[in-house]
Amino acid sequence: MAQLERIGVSLDRELLSMFDELIEKQGYQSRSEAIRDLVRQQLSQEKLSNPKAMAVAAVFLVYNHHSTKLTDKLVAVQHSHNLGSSLQIISTLHVHLDEHDCMEVIVLRGHVCQINKMAEGILSMKGVKLGRLNIVAT
Amino acid sequence: MAQLERIGVSLDRELLSMFDELIEKQGYQSRSEAIRDLVRQQLSQEKLSNPKAMAVAAVFLVYNHHSTKLTDKLVAVQHSHNLGSSLQIISTLHVHLDEHDCMEVIVLRGHVCQINKMAEGILSMKGVKLGRLNIVAT
Amino acid sequence: MAQLERIGVSLDRELLSMFDELIEKQGYQSRSEAIRDLVRQQLSQEKLSNPKAMAVAAVFLVYNHHSTKLTDKLVAVQHSHNLGSSLQIISTLHVHLDEHDCMEVIVLRGHVCQINKMAEGILSMKGVKLGRLNIVAT
Amino acid sequence: MAQLERIGVSLDRELLSMFDELIEKQGYQSRSEAIRDLVRQQLSQEKLSNPKAMAVAAVFLVYNHHSTKLTDKLVAVQHSHNLGSSLQIISTLHVHLDEHDCMEVIVLRGHVCQINKMAEGILSMKGVKLGRLNIVAT
Repeated sequence: MAQLERIGVSLDRELLSMFDELIEKQGYQSRSEAIRDLVRQQLSQEKLSNPKAMAVAAVFLVYNHHSTKLTDKLVAVQHSHNLGSSLQIISTLHVHLDEHDCMEVIVLRGHVCQINKMAEGILSMKGVKLGRLNIVAT
Repeated sequence: MAQLERIGVSLDRELLSMFDELIEKQGYQSRSEAIRDLVRQQLSQEKLSNPKAMAVAAVFLVYNHHSTKLTDKLVAVQHSHNLGSSLQIISTLHVHLDEHDCMEVIVLRGHVCQINKMAEGILSMKGVKLGRLNIVAT
Repeated sequence: MAQLERIGVSLDRELLSMFDELIEKQGYQSRSEAIRDLVRQQLSQEKLSNPKAMAVAAVFLVYNHHSTKLTDKLVAVQHSHNLGSSLQIISTLHVHLDEHDCMEVIVLRGHVCQINKMAEGILSMKGVKLGRLNIVAT
Repeated sequence: MAQLERIGVSLDRELLSMFDELIEKQGYQSRSEAIRDLVRQQLSQEKLSNPKAMAVAAVFLVYNHHSTKLTDKLVAVQHSHNLGSSLQIISTLHVHLDEHDCMEVIVLRGHVCQINKMAEGILSMKGVKLGRLNIVAT
Protein backbone atom coordinates (compact mmCIF):
# COMPACT_ATOMS: atom_id res chain seq x y z
CA MET A 1 0.00 0.00 0.00
CA ALA A 2 1.12 3.55 -0.73
CA GLN A 3 2.06 5.52 2.38
CA LEU A 4 -0.15 8.53 3.03
CA GLU A 5 1.05 11.90 4.24
CA ARG A 6 -1.18 14.58 5.61
CA ILE A 7 -0.48 18.20 4.73
CA GLY A 8 -2.19 21.41 5.77
CA VAL A 9 -3.52 23.81 3.15
CA SER A 10 -4.76 27.35 3.81
CA LEU A 11 -7.58 28.74 1.70
CA ASP A 12 -9.88 31.75 1.88
CA ARG A 13 -13.16 30.75 3.47
CA GLU A 14 -15.04 31.83 0.35
CA LEU A 15 -12.86 29.89 -2.05
CA LEU A 16 -13.21 26.82 0.14
CA SER A 17 -16.97 26.98 0.26
CA MET A 18 -17.21 27.31 -3.53
CA PHE A 19 -14.85 24.36 -3.92
CA ASP A 20 -16.94 22.28 -1.50
CA GLU A 21 -20.02 23.05 -3.52
CA LEU A 22 -18.36 22.11 -6.81
CA ILE A 23 -16.91 18.82 -5.62
CA GLU A 24 -20.18 17.80 -4.02
CA LYS A 25 -21.87 18.40 -7.35
CA GLN A 26 -19.18 16.38 -9.11
CA GLY A 27 -19.73 13.54 -6.65
CA TYR A 28 -16.47 13.54 -4.68
CA GLN A 29 -16.65 12.00 -1.21
CA SER A 30 -13.84 14.08 0.30
CA ARG A 31 -11.75 17.18 -0.34
CA SER A 32 -8.59 15.09 -0.23
CA GLU A 33 -9.81 12.95 -3.12
CA ALA A 34 -10.69 16.03 -5.19
CA ILE A 35 -7.37 17.72 -4.49
CA ARG A 36 -5.43 14.53 -5.25
CA ASP A 37 -7.14 14.43 -8.65
CA LEU A 38 -6.18 18.05 -9.37
CA VAL A 39 -2.59 17.32 -8.41
CA ARG A 40 -2.43 14.16 -10.54
CA GLN A 41 -3.83 15.93 -13.59
CA GLN A 42 -1.29 18.71 -13.19
CA LEU A 43 1.58 16.25 -12.94
CA SER A 44 0.36 14.20 -15.87
CA GLN A 45 0.03 17.35 -17.98
CA GLU A 46 3.56 18.37 -17.10
CA LYS A 47 5.06 15.01 -17.96
CA LEU A 48 3.50 14.98 -21.39
CA SER A 49 5.63 17.94 -22.43
CA ASN A 50 8.56 15.50 -22.40
CA PRO A 51 8.52 13.54 -25.69
CA LYS A 52 10.45 10.67 -24.11
CA ALA A 53 8.06 10.15 -21.18
CA MET A 54 6.16 6.85 -21.11
CA ALA A 55 2.43 7.19 -21.51
CA VAL A 56 -0.72 5.25 -22.18
CA ALA A 57 -3.17 6.64 -24.66
CA ALA A 58 -6.52 6.02 -26.20
CA VAL A 59 -7.03 7.19 -29.76
CA PHE A 60 -10.72 7.77 -30.26
CA LEU A 61 -12.00 7.96 -33.83
CA VAL A 62 -15.25 8.05 -35.76
CA TYR A 63 -15.06 6.78 -39.32
CA ASN A 64 -17.16 5.68 -42.23
CA HIS A 65 -16.64 1.95 -42.67
CA HIS A 66 -17.68 2.12 -46.34
CA SER A 67 -14.68 4.20 -47.24
CA THR A 68 -12.06 2.70 -45.01
CA LYS A 69 -10.65 -0.64 -44.09
CA LEU A 70 -9.18 0.65 -40.92
CA THR A 71 -7.76 -2.66 -39.79
CA ASP A 72 -5.67 -2.98 -42.95
CA LYS A 73 -4.54 0.59 -42.77
CA LEU A 74 -3.60 0.39 -39.12
CA VAL A 75 -1.15 -2.37 -39.92
CA ALA A 76 0.24 -0.25 -42.75
CA VAL A 77 0.64 2.80 -40.50
CA GLN A 78 2.63 0.78 -38.02
CA HIS A 79 5.02 -0.54 -40.63
CA SER A 80 5.45 2.78 -42.39
CA HIS A 81 6.50 4.41 -39.14
CA ASN A 82 9.09 1.77 -38.42
CA LEU A 83 7.92 1.56 -34.85
CA GLY A 84 10.30 -0.34 -32.63
CA SER A 85 9.14 -2.67 -29.92
CA SER A 86 8.50 0.12 -27.43
CA LEU A 87 5.15 1.19 -28.92
CA GLN A 88 2.47 -1.37 -28.17
CA ILE A 89 -1.08 -1.41 -29.43
CA ILE A 90 -2.74 -2.94 -26.42
CA SER A 91 -6.28 -3.35 -27.62
CA THR A 92 -9.10 -1.95 -29.64
CA LEU A 93 -12.78 -1.37 -28.99
CA HIS A 94 -15.12 -1.15 -31.94
CA VAL A 95 -18.66 0.22 -31.81
CA HIS A 96 -21.20 0.37 -34.65
CA LEU A 97 -22.81 3.80 -34.40
CA ASP A 98 -25.20 3.58 -37.36
CA GLU A 99 -25.28 2.17 -40.91
CA HIS A 100 -22.39 4.38 -41.98
CA ASP A 101 -20.32 5.22 -38.98
CA CYS A 102 -18.14 3.28 -36.60
CA MET A 103 -16.30 4.40 -33.53
CA GLU A 104 -13.02 2.86 -32.61
CA VAL A 105 -10.92 3.31 -29.49
CA ILE A 106 -7.32 2.14 -29.83
CA VAL A 107 -5.29 1.81 -26.65
CA LEU A 108 -1.55 2.36 -26.99
CA ARG A 109 1.44 2.41 -24.70
CA GLY A 110 4.79 3.99 -25.55
CA HIS A 111 6.81 7.19 -25.56
CA VAL A 112 4.83 10.41 -25.90
CA CYS A 113 6.46 11.16 -29.26
CA GLN A 114 5.68 7.69 -30.67
CA ILE A 115 2.08 7.92 -29.55
CA ASN A 116 1.70 11.35 -31.13
CA LYS A 117 3.14 10.12 -34.42
CA MET A 118 0.91 7.06 -34.50
CA ALA A 119 -2.16 9.11 -33.62
CA GLU A 120 -1.41 11.62 -36.39
CA GLY A 121 -1.06 8.74 -38.84
CA ILE A 122 -4.41 7.27 -37.84
CA LEU A 123 -6.37 10.51 -37.59
CA SER A 124 -5.22 11.69 -41.03
CA MET A 125 -6.54 8.59 -42.84
CA LYS A 126 -9.17 9.06 -45.47
CA GLY A 127 -12.54 8.12 -44.04
CA VAL A 128 -11.68 9.11 -40.46
CA LYS A 129 -14.19 11.86 -39.76
CA LEU A 130 -13.31 12.90 -36.28
CA GLY A 131 -10.72 11.87 -33.80
CA ARG A 132 -9.16 12.71 -30.52
CA LEU A 133 -6.07 11.60 -28.67
CA ASN A 134 -6.18 10.99 -24.91
CA ILE A 135 -2.79 10.60 -23.45
CA VAL A 136 -1.86 10.09 -19.85
CA ALA A 137 1.66 9.90 -18.50
CA THR A 138 2.22 6.84 -16.32
CA MET B 1 -23.51 8.01 -51.00
CA ALA B 2 -23.09 11.59 -49.86
CA GLN B 3 -23.06 14.12 -52.70
CA LEU B 4 -19.83 16.01 -53.10
CA GLU B 5 -19.50 19.69 -53.92
CA ARG B 6 -16.33 21.35 -55.05
CA ILE B 7 -15.51 24.81 -53.78
CA GLY B 8 -12.61 27.12 -54.52
CA VAL B 9 -10.46 28.48 -51.69
CA SER B 10 -7.85 31.25 -52.01
CA LEU B 11 -4.76 31.13 -49.84
CA ASP B 12 -1.41 32.92 -49.76
CA ARG B 13 1.19 30.84 -51.55
CA GLU B 14 3.30 30.72 -48.39
CA LEU B 15 0.46 29.57 -46.15
CA LEU B 16 -0.45 26.89 -48.66
CA SER B 17 3.06 25.52 -48.88
CA MET B 18 3.34 25.31 -45.07
CA PHE B 19 -0.03 23.56 -44.97
CA ASP B 20 1.05 21.07 -47.63
CA GLU B 21 4.16 20.30 -45.64
CA LEU B 22 2.19 19.76 -42.43
CA ILE B 23 -0.44 17.49 -43.93
CA GLU B 24 2.14 15.42 -45.73
CA LYS B 25 3.88 14.90 -42.39
CA GLN B 26 0.56 13.96 -40.79
CA GLY B 27 -0.05 11.46 -43.57
CA TYR B 28 -2.99 13.01 -45.43
CA GLN B 29 -3.41 11.93 -49.05
CA SER B 30 -5.08 15.12 -50.22
CA ARG B 31 -5.75 18.72 -49.21
CA SER B 32 -9.47 18.14 -49.45
CA GLU B 33 -9.30 15.39 -46.83
CA ALA B 34 -7.25 17.59 -44.46
CA ILE B 35 -9.59 20.54 -44.88
CA ARG B 36 -12.67 18.38 -44.42
CA ASP B 37 -11.22 17.21 -41.10
CA LEU B 38 -10.61 20.81 -39.97
CA VAL B 39 -14.18 21.70 -40.91
CA ARG B 40 -15.67 18.69 -39.12
CA GLN B 41 -13.70 19.37 -35.94
CA GLN B 42 -14.85 22.98 -35.94
CA LEU B 43 -18.49 21.94 -36.40
CA SER B 44 -18.29 19.26 -33.75
CA GLN B 45 -16.74 21.73 -31.30
CA GLU B 46 -19.49 24.19 -31.97
CA LYS B 47 -22.28 21.67 -31.46
CA LEU B 48 -20.94 20.60 -28.11
CA SER B 49 -21.71 24.01 -26.68
CA ASN B 50 -25.37 23.03 -26.92
CA PRO B 51 -26.21 20.84 -23.88
CA LYS B 52 -29.10 19.19 -25.73
CA ALA B 53 -27.08 18.09 -28.78
CA MET B 54 -26.68 14.33 -29.26
CA ALA B 55 -23.14 13.08 -28.91
CA VAL B 56 -21.07 9.97 -28.54
CA ALA B 57 -18.33 9.95 -25.98
CA ALA B 58 -15.56 7.85 -24.60
CA VAL B 59 -14.71 8.28 -20.94
CA PHE B 60 -11.12 7.24 -20.47
CA LEU B 61 -9.96 6.49 -16.93
CA VAL B 62 -7.01 5.03 -15.08
CA TYR B 63 -7.78 3.56 -11.69
CA ASN B 64 -6.38 1.37 -8.97
CA HIS B 65 -8.39 -1.82 -8.94
CA HIS B 66 -7.46 -2.51 -5.29
CA SER B 67 -9.36 0.50 -4.09
CA THR B 68 -12.33 0.46 -6.41
CA LYS B 69 -14.96 -1.86 -7.66
CA LEU B 70 -15.70 0.24 -10.63
CA THR B 71 -18.32 -2.06 -12.10
CA ASP B 72 -20.45 -1.83 -8.96
CA LYS B 73 -20.02 1.89 -8.72
CA LEU B 74 -20.86 2.47 -12.35
CA VAL B 75 -24.24 0.89 -11.79
CA ALA B 76 -24.72 3.07 -8.73
CA VAL B 77 -23.78 6.25 -10.61
CA GLN B 78 -26.36 5.50 -13.26
CA HIS B 79 -29.13 5.00 -10.76
CA SER B 80 -28.22 7.98 -8.62
CA HIS B 81 -28.45 10.25 -11.64
CA ASN B 82 -31.88 8.97 -12.59
CA LEU B 83 -30.80 8.74 -16.17
CA GLY B 84 -33.68 8.19 -18.54
CA SER B 85 -33.49 5.93 -21.54
CA SER B 86 -31.68 8.47 -23.71
CA LEU B 87 -28.24 7.91 -22.18
CA GLN B 88 -26.83 4.58 -23.27
CA ILE B 89 -23.63 2.95 -22.10
CA ILE B 90 -22.67 1.23 -25.31
CA SER B 91 -19.64 -0.73 -24.26
CA THR B 92 -16.53 -0.83 -22.16
CA LEU B 93 -12.93 -1.72 -22.82
CA HIS B 94 -10.77 -2.81 -19.92
CA VAL B 95 -6.97 -2.99 -19.98
CA HIS B 96 -4.66 -4.21 -17.20
CA LEU B 97 -1.79 -1.73 -17.10
CA ASP B 98 0.23 -3.25 -14.24
CA GLU B 99 -0.38 -4.97 -10.87
CA HIS B 100 -2.13 -1.90 -9.50
CA ASP B 101 -3.62 0.05 -12.33
CA CYS B 102 -6.32 -0.55 -14.86
CA MET B 103 -7.49 1.56 -17.75
CA GLU B 104 -11.08 1.60 -18.76
CA VAL B 105 -12.74 3.21 -21.75
CA ILE B 106 -16.50 3.58 -21.45
CA VAL B 107 -18.41 4.47 -24.61
CA LEU B 108 -21.61 6.45 -24.12
CA ARG B 109 -24.25 7.98 -26.32
CA GLY B 110 -26.71 10.68 -25.21
CA HIS B 111 -27.23 14.40 -24.81
CA VAL B 112 -24.13 16.47 -24.14
CA CYS B 113 -25.40 17.43 -20.68
CA GLN B 114 -26.12 13.82 -19.69
CA ILE B 115 -22.73 12.68 -20.87
CA ASN B 116 -21.03 15.46 -18.91
CA LYS B 117 -22.90 14.56 -15.76
CA MET B 118 -22.14 10.87 -16.07
CA ALA B 119 -18.47 11.58 -16.79
CA GLU B 120 -18.20 13.85 -13.74
CA GLY B 121 -19.75 11.12 -11.62
CA ILE B 122 -17.28 8.53 -12.85
CA LEU B 123 -14.16 10.69 -12.78
CA SER B 124 -14.81 11.86 -9.22
CA MET B 125 -14.92 8.31 -7.80
CA LYS B 126 -12.38 7.36 -5.18
CA GLY B 127 -9.67 5.28 -6.79
CA VAL B 128 -9.96 6.92 -10.21
CA LYS B 129 -6.52 8.46 -10.64
CA LEU B 130 -6.82 10.16 -13.98
CA GLY B 131 -9.54 10.55 -16.49
CA ARG B 132 -10.53 12.33 -19.63
CA LEU B 133 -13.75 12.79 -21.52
CA ASN B 134 -13.81 12.65 -25.32
CA ILE B 135 -17.02 13.84 -26.72
CA VAL B 136 -18.01 14.17 -30.33
CA ALA B 137 -21.28 15.58 -31.62
CA THR B 138 -22.99 13.29 -34.10
CA MET C 1 -8.91 40.77 4.42
CA ALA C 2 -10.26 37.37 3.42
CA GLN C 3 -10.50 34.91 6.29
CA LEU C 4 -8.27 31.88 5.94
CA GLU C 5 -9.23 28.34 6.82
CA ARG C 6 -6.80 25.50 7.19
CA ILE C 7 -7.76 22.08 5.92
CA GLY C 8 -5.90 18.76 5.98
CA VAL C 9 -5.29 16.85 2.77
CA SER C 10 -3.99 13.26 2.55
CA LEU C 11 -1.78 12.27 -0.36
CA ASP C 12 0.47 9.33 -1.21
CA ARG C 13 4.04 10.14 -0.27
CA GLU C 14 5.14 9.60 -3.88
CA LEU C 15 2.49 11.86 -5.36
CA LEU C 16 3.39 14.56 -2.84
CA SER C 17 7.08 14.44 -3.62
CA MET C 18 6.41 14.73 -7.36
CA PHE C 19 4.10 17.66 -6.69
CA ASP C 20 6.72 19.37 -4.52
CA GLU C 21 9.24 19.00 -7.30
CA LEU C 22 6.88 20.42 -9.92
CA ILE C 23 5.83 23.45 -7.89
CA GLU C 24 9.39 24.25 -6.95
CA LYS C 25 10.25 24.23 -10.65
CA GLN C 26 7.26 26.46 -11.37
CA GLY C 27 8.42 28.87 -8.69
CA TYR C 28 5.72 28.49 -6.03
CA GLN C 29 6.70 29.45 -2.51
CA SER C 30 4.28 27.11 -0.76
CA ARG C 31 2.04 24.11 -1.38
CA SER C 32 -0.97 26.09 -0.21
CA GLU C 33 -0.42 28.69 -2.92
CA ALA C 34 -0.09 26.01 -5.61
CA ILE C 35 -3.20 24.16 -4.45
CA ARG C 36 -5.19 27.39 -4.20
CA ASP C 37 -4.32 28.08 -7.85
CA LEU C 38 -5.48 24.61 -8.91
CA VAL C 39 -8.75 25.12 -7.02
CA ARG C 40 -9.32 28.58 -8.51
CA GLN C 41 -8.71 27.36 -12.06
CA GLN C 42 -11.13 24.50 -11.56
CA LEU C 43 -13.82 26.85 -10.23
CA SER C 44 -13.28 29.39 -12.97
CA GLN C 45 -13.52 26.64 -15.61
CA GLU C 46 -16.77 25.42 -14.09
CA LYS C 47 -18.35 28.87 -13.99
CA LEU C 48 -17.65 29.50 -17.65
CA SER C 49 -20.04 26.74 -18.62
CA ASN C 50 -22.82 29.08 -17.50
CA PRO C 51 -23.50 31.59 -20.32
CA LYS C 52 -24.93 34.13 -17.85
CA ALA C 53 -21.90 34.18 -15.53
CA MET C 54 -19.95 37.45 -15.38
CA ALA C 55 -16.44 37.24 -16.70
CA VAL C 56 -13.49 39.30 -17.76
CA ALA C 57 -11.74 38.39 -20.96
CA ALA C 58 -8.84 39.30 -23.14
CA VAL C 59 -9.22 38.77 -26.86
CA PHE C 60 -5.77 38.34 -28.31
CA LEU C 61 -5.38 38.76 -32.07
CA VAL C 62 -2.68 39.04 -34.70
CA TYR C 63 -3.67 40.88 -37.85
CA ASN C 64 -2.28 42.46 -40.96
CA HIS C 65 -2.77 46.20 -40.64
CA HIS C 66 -2.65 46.66 -44.42
CA SER C 67 -5.83 44.70 -44.92
CA THR C 68 -7.81 45.79 -41.90
CA LYS C 69 -8.85 48.91 -40.17
CA LEU C 70 -9.57 47.11 -36.97
CA THR C 71 -10.57 50.18 -35.01
CA ASP C 72 -13.36 50.98 -37.48
CA LYS C 73 -14.51 47.40 -37.61
CA LEU C 74 -14.54 47.02 -33.87
CA VAL C 75 -17.01 49.82 -33.59
CA ALA C 76 -19.11 48.17 -36.29
CA VAL C 77 -19.07 44.80 -34.53
CA GLN C 78 -20.32 46.38 -31.36
CA HIS C 79 -23.22 48.09 -33.07
CA SER C 80 -24.17 45.10 -35.19
CA HIS C 81 -24.49 42.96 -32.08
CA ASN C 82 -26.71 45.47 -30.35
CA LEU C 83 -24.76 45.04 -27.18
CA GLY C 84 -26.48 46.51 -24.18
CA SER C 85 -24.65 48.29 -21.44
CA SER C 86 -23.55 45.09 -19.71
CA LEU C 87 -20.69 44.35 -22.12
CA GLN C 88 -17.83 46.79 -21.62
CA ILE C 89 -14.70 47.11 -23.68
CA ILE C 90 -12.32 48.14 -20.94
CA SER C 91 -9.16 48.78 -22.86
CA THR C 92 -6.94 47.78 -25.71
CA LEU C 93 -3.22 47.16 -26.07
CA HIS C 94 -1.66 47.47 -29.48
CA VAL C 95 1.78 46.12 -30.43
CA HIS C 96 3.58 46.49 -33.77
CA LEU C 97 5.11 43.08 -34.49
CA ASP C 98 6.74 43.83 -37.85
CA GLU C 99 6.01 45.82 -41.04
CA HIS C 100 2.89 43.78 -41.75
CA ASP C 101 1.56 42.42 -38.51
CA CYS C 102 0.07 43.91 -35.40
CA MET C 103 -1.03 42.28 -32.20
CA GLU C 104 -3.97 43.60 -30.28
CA VAL C 105 -5.28 42.61 -26.87
CA ILE C 106 -8.82 43.77 -26.15
CA VAL C 107 -10.02 43.53 -22.56
CA LEU C 108 -13.75 42.99 -22.09
CA ARG C 109 -16.11 42.50 -19.19
CA GLY C 110 -19.61 41.04 -19.45
CA HIS C 111 -21.64 37.85 -19.53
CA VAL C 112 -19.89 34.78 -20.86
CA CYS C 113 -22.29 34.56 -23.81
CA GLN C 114 -21.78 38.23 -24.77
CA ILE C 115 -18.03 37.88 -24.60
CA ASN C 116 -18.13 34.76 -26.77
CA LYS C 117 -20.25 36.49 -29.36
CA MET C 118 -18.05 39.57 -29.47
CA ALA C 119 -14.90 37.43 -29.70
CA GLU C 120 -16.37 35.41 -32.59
CA GLY C 121 -17.20 38.64 -34.36
CA ILE C 122 -13.69 39.98 -33.98
CA LEU C 123 -11.81 36.78 -34.74
CA SER C 124 -13.77 36.16 -37.94
CA MET C 125 -12.85 39.52 -39.47
CA LYS C 126 -10.92 39.55 -42.72
CA GLY C 127 -7.30 40.27 -41.99
CA VAL C 128 -7.28 38.72 -38.53
CA LYS C 129 -4.76 35.92 -38.92
CA LEU C 130 -4.81 34.31 -35.53
CA GLY C 131 -6.71 34.88 -32.37
CA ARG C 132 -7.45 33.47 -28.99
CA LEU C 133 -9.99 34.22 -26.30
CA ASN C 134 -8.97 34.19 -22.63
CA ILE C 135 -11.90 34.27 -20.38
CA VAL C 136 -11.95 34.16 -16.61
CA ALA C 137 -15.05 34.06 -14.44
CA THR C 138 -15.01 36.71 -11.73
CA MET D 1 1.40 41.77 -51.33
CA ALA D 2 1.29 38.02 -50.73
CA GLN D 3 0.53 35.98 -53.84
CA LEU D 4 -2.74 34.12 -53.74
CA GLU D 5 -3.32 30.62 -55.03
CA ARG D 6 -6.70 29.10 -55.61
CA ILE D 7 -7.26 25.45 -54.75
CA GLY D 8 -10.30 23.23 -55.13
CA VAL D 9 -11.71 21.40 -52.12
CA SER D 10 -14.37 18.66 -52.24
CA LEU D 11 -16.85 18.38 -49.38
CA ASP D 12 -20.12 16.52 -48.79
CA ARG D 13 -23.03 18.81 -49.53
CA GLU D 14 -24.31 18.38 -45.96
CA LEU D 15 -20.98 19.19 -44.35
CA LEU D 16 -20.66 22.27 -46.53
CA SER D 17 -24.09 23.59 -45.66
CA MET D 18 -23.42 23.18 -41.91
CA PHE D 19 -20.09 24.95 -42.35
CA ASP D 20 -21.74 27.81 -44.24
CA GLU D 21 -24.25 28.20 -41.43
CA LEU D 22 -21.55 28.25 -38.76
CA ILE D 23 -19.31 30.77 -40.47
CA GLU D 24 -22.20 33.06 -41.23
CA LYS D 25 -23.07 33.00 -37.53
CA GLN D 26 -19.43 33.72 -36.66
CA GLY D 27 -19.44 36.66 -39.04
CA TYR D 28 -17.10 35.49 -41.79
CA GLN D 29 -17.55 37.15 -45.18
CA SER D 30 -16.29 34.22 -47.24
CA ARG D 31 -15.48 30.53 -47.00
CA SER D 32 -11.90 31.21 -48.05
CA GLU D 33 -11.39 33.49 -45.06
CA ALA D 34 -12.84 30.90 -42.65
CA ILE D 35 -10.74 28.09 -44.10
CA ARG D 36 -7.58 30.21 -44.06
CA ASP D 37 -8.16 30.80 -40.34
CA LEU D 38 -8.54 27.06 -39.69
CA VAL D 39 -5.34 26.38 -41.61
CA ARG D 40 -3.41 29.10 -39.77
CA GLN D 41 -4.55 27.86 -36.36
CA GLN D 42 -3.50 24.33 -37.23
CA LEU D 43 -0.06 25.50 -38.38
CA SER D 44 0.44 27.70 -35.35
CA GLN D 45 -0.54 24.82 -33.04
CA GLU D 46 1.93 22.55 -34.77
CA LYS D 47 4.82 25.00 -34.53
CA LEU D 48 4.34 25.46 -30.81
CA SER D 49 5.34 21.87 -30.21
CA ASN D 50 8.87 22.94 -31.13
CA PRO D 51 10.46 24.58 -28.04
CA LYS D 52 12.88 26.56 -30.22
CA ALA D 53 10.21 28.13 -32.46
CA MET D 54 9.81 31.90 -32.21
CA ALA D 55 6.50 33.04 -30.84
CA VAL D 56 4.65 36.00 -29.47
CA ALA D 57 2.60 35.55 -26.36
CA ALA D 58 0.27 37.34 -24.05
CA VAL D 59 0.29 36.29 -20.41
CA PHE D 60 -3.07 37.18 -18.93
CA LEU D 61 -3.32 37.32 -15.14
CA VAL D 62 -5.72 38.41 -12.43
CA TYR D 63 -4.12 39.32 -9.12
CA ASN D 64 -4.79 40.98 -5.82
CA HIS D 65 -2.75 44.17 -5.74
CA HIS D 66 -2.78 44.23 -1.92
CA SER D 67 -0.72 41.07 -1.73
CA THR D 68 1.60 41.56 -4.66
CA LYS D 69 3.93 44.12 -6.06
CA LEU D 70 3.90 42.57 -9.43
CA THR D 71 6.18 45.09 -11.06
CA ASP D 72 8.96 44.37 -8.58
CA LYS D 73 8.49 40.66 -8.86
CA LEU D 74 8.45 40.69 -12.64
CA VAL D 75 11.90 42.18 -12.63
CA ALA D 76 13.01 39.51 -10.17
CA VAL D 77 11.58 36.70 -12.28
CA GLN D 78 13.50 37.90 -15.29
CA HIS D 79 16.79 38.00 -13.46
CA SER D 80 16.29 34.69 -11.68
CA HIS D 81 15.76 32.95 -15.01
CA ASN D 82 18.90 34.43 -16.52
CA LEU D 83 17.03 35.21 -19.66
CA GLY D 84 19.27 36.17 -22.51
CA SER D 85 18.48 38.93 -24.93
CA SER D 86 16.17 36.81 -27.06
CA LEU D 87 13.18 37.05 -24.72
CA GLN D 88 11.63 40.51 -24.88
CA ILE D 89 8.84 41.86 -22.74
CA ILE D 90 7.19 44.09 -25.32
CA SER D 91 4.53 45.79 -23.26
CA THR D 92 2.02 45.52 -20.50
CA LEU D 93 -1.61 46.46 -20.13
CA HIS D 94 -2.99 47.00 -16.65
CA VAL D 95 -6.70 47.13 -15.77
CA HIS D 96 -8.25 47.86 -12.36
CA LEU D 97 -11.09 45.35 -12.00
CA ASP D 98 -12.33 46.35 -8.52
CA GLU D 99 -10.91 47.47 -5.15
CA HIS D 100 -8.96 44.24 -4.77
CA ASP D 101 -8.24 42.82 -8.17
CA CYS D 102 -6.18 43.88 -11.13
CA MET D 103 -5.79 42.30 -14.52
CA GLU D 104 -2.54 42.47 -16.35
CA VAL D 105 -1.69 41.39 -19.87
CA ILE D 106 2.04 41.04 -20.55
CA VAL D 107 3.13 40.73 -24.17
CA LEU D 108 6.30 38.74 -24.78
CA ARG D 109 8.32 37.64 -27.77
CA GLY D 110 10.88 34.83 -27.74
CA HIS D 111 11.41 31.10 -28.07
CA VAL D 112 8.48 28.91 -27.06
CA CYS D 113 10.51 27.39 -24.20
CA GLN D 114 11.54 30.80 -22.83
CA ILE D 115 7.99 32.06 -22.95
CA ASN D 116 6.72 28.97 -21.14
CA LYS D 117 9.32 29.37 -18.42
CA MET D 118 8.58 33.04 -17.93
CA ALA D 119 4.84 32.40 -17.85
CA GLU D 120 5.24 29.67 -15.24
CA GLY D 121 7.32 32.03 -13.13
CA ILE D 122 4.70 34.74 -13.31
CA LEU D 123 1.63 32.56 -12.85
CA SER D 124 3.07 30.84 -9.78
CA MET D 125 3.59 34.10 -7.87
CA LYS D 126 1.76 34.56 -4.60
CA GLY D 127 -1.20 36.82 -5.16
CA VAL D 128 -1.77 35.79 -8.77
CA LYS D 129 -5.24 34.29 -8.64
CA LEU D 130 -5.79 33.17 -12.18
CA GLY D 131 -3.73 33.23 -15.30
CA ARG D 132 -3.55 32.02 -18.83
CA LEU D 133 -0.87 31.93 -21.47
CA ASN D 134 -1.70 32.73 -25.11
CA ILE D 135 1.04 31.83 -27.41
CA VAL D 136 1.13 32.13 -31.16
CA ALA D 137 3.96 31.00 -33.41
CA THR D 138 5.11 33.72 -35.81
